[in-house]
Amino acid sequence: MPPKLNSETGHGELALLRSIRERACQISTKSLRLGIGDDCALLSLRPGEELAITTDLSIAGRHFRLDWHQPESIGHRSLARGLSDLAAMGARPIAAFLSLGLPRELTHSSNGRIPWVQRFLDGLHALGMAHKTPLAGGDLSESPIPIADIVLTGAVHRGKALLRSGARPGHLIYVTGSLGGAAAGLARLADLAKSSGTRAGEPEPPRVPKSLAAQLAPHLFPQPRIAQGLFLQRRRIASAAIDLSDGLSTDLSHICEESRVAAQVDADLLPIHPDATLAQALDGGEDYELLFTAPAAARIPRKIPGVPITRIGRMVKARAGTPAVILLTRQGRHPLEPQGWQHFS
Amino acid sequence: MPPKLNSETGHGELALLRSIRERACQISTKSLRLGIGDDCALLSLRPGEELAITTDLSIAGRHFRLDWHQPESIGHRSLARGLSDLAAMGARPIAAFLSLGLPRELTHSSNGRIPWVQRFLDGLHALGMAHKTPLAGGDLSESPIPIADIVLTGAVHRGKALLRSGARPGHLIYVTGSLGGAAAGLARLADLAKSSGTRAGEPEPPRVPKSLAAQLAPHLFPQPRIAQGLFLQRRRIASAAIDLSDGLSTDLSHICEESRVAAQVDADLLPIHPDATLAQALDGGEDYELLFTAPAAARIPRKIPGVPITRIGRMVKARAGTPAVILLTRQGRHPLEPQGWQHFS
Repeated sequence: MPPKLNSETGHGELALLRSIRERACQISTKSLRLGIGDDCALLSLRPGEELAITTDLSIAGRHFRLDWHQPESIGHRSLARGLSDLAAMGARPIAAFLSLGLPRELTHSSNGRIPWVQRFLDGLHALGMAHKTPLAGGDLSESPIPIADIVLTGAVHRGKALLRSGARPGHLIYVTGSLGGAAAGLARLADLAKSSGTRAGEPEPPRVPKSLAAQLAPHLFPQPRIAQGLFLQRRRIASAAIDLSDGLSTDLSHICEESRVAAQVDADLLPIHPDATLAQALDGGEDYELLFTAPAAARIPRKIPGVPITRIGRMVKARAGTPAVILLTRQGRHPLEPQGWQHFS
Repeated sequence: MPPKLNSETGHGELALLRSIRERACQISTKSLRLGIGDDCALLSLRPGEELAITTDLSIAGRHFRLDWHQPESIGHRSLARGLSDLAAMGARPIAAFLSLGLPRELTHSSNGRIPWVQRFLDGLHALGMAHKTPLAGGDLSESPIPIADIVLTGAVHRGKALLRSGARPGHLIYVTGSLGGAAAGLARLADLAKSSGTRAGEPEPPRVPKSLAAQLAPHLFPQPRIAQGLFLQRRRIASAAIDLSDGLSTDLSHICEESRVAAQVDADLLPIHPDATLAQALDGGEDYELLFTAPAAARIPRKIPGVPITRIGRMVKARAGTPAVILLTRQGRHPLEPQGWQHFS
């Protein structure tokens, strides 16, 4: 018989599947009616709710590096990307699904150490616990390079989700928290990896000294703004919202495109993270803060569940031939081109 | 600034995204309230429905080969895997999500030919049209090897989904269609690839001559049994169901495990595909037929929406220390061990 190409559940992965299933049972949500163990999972919604769903693909060498990132961080970051998308819609998380492709050596114990995959799941599970988001299914496969596709499902009242398309000229632009901390942390991590002499391809990330843990945390363990997204949605404060995954310059341009408006950002107002540069705050990405707009007359709290809110600019009319996003500095007006990662360019 | 690790929508992929978005708009379903273009897609259910969701990861070299499979077949097969999971639950499809990682060269046109990714999407889209299943979101990334994670969402009446866990001793076992055709087709495709002298690593699959198209179709373009799954669910015929993705030996053992029963299969009753061997029918996988059980007293139609039904055995009490699945032949009783693909073993 020729080699089989199919690869749903086989024996070799049963131990891994069982361990995932046991952990998943530690988190219960009423909306998850049937989790791992059948052809599909089953989710139910409360009356008047609709389902929000998002997928985020993480690939070794592009979204993480085995020689830079501890497996717990990779698991955390994979889930954080999806949770942040739910936050940006104002949805409450229901369950996550994980499609995981790994080289065999990352699934086995060597020298009595905990297998890489278990530490990856530790990181993912810890963040899932914090946001009551069980793993409810997925797929496993051997793969020459590690890849993790995360699917997040959430619930939001019908017609009440925060969209990218609701910003209007005159609306003010706000962000939660501070900007650039993740990019600054990544730069620091890169330095650390170089100075500890790890090599690309050798899956042994540097140990993070305690003195650096706080500086690296915005990159290694970003906190998705679930509570803040829910607050904005329930109080009907925001006219449009997006999460800052690609960086302010790129994500604000998405709001402009979907809302068919333009934007002016005031450089002096930006809540730049103390470790970060202006460029990191504008283009760094992965801060997973929320960017939202609201009518100028709206009363915006200084903080929403514990996180400061800062006004950074205003939406204006879009004009053909002019850049969608302008940065205002004391020196003048500068077009702010989207600097997000360019695939396939 | 250090290299960015994040990779949501950037400029380079915009053309590809636009083309995906335009095609997605050609299929409309009421349950898909918001598709591509925001942080999440939004799905709504009818009163009394719950959501079925499944993910299937396909990786080059494991689930398909660039030097064996035309891109249209790879796109079709990726979507078929997920649709088949919905069929096994008796769910009607709502929408699909695609996380796609591709080497750059597969996204560009060379020598005026249609880019690989467009042909992949052609195959996926054609099957989606046939089952009214639009692409409602996903993620794109450059990747050293092609990978496609497909998420399928569907709706089913609350509490009415076909589960793996409902089989009882005495229930009879049925399958739709015939078994082993996909494995036989794969064997034929492997021969064809070898004789046309294509080499591994060279992404140029052999042309399938018209005389072989019918023989290869069960492997290259398997048909998920959506209508048949819906029929079984609505008429409340099946006590348990699963789709035959890993092969009868493996998938029947899943039913046994989840239902805590054992099974006897009668070799003489098996509807073996005319091109297939007994081994291919038992272990081949990827036929995407439905296997279901029903009480002995249930009246089972000979055909359900156009596809023949065949009784192949019965469920019996599980006994500790005896194999879950037994094959009965004229020579006697043989344990039927699950032969599905073993990951990480």
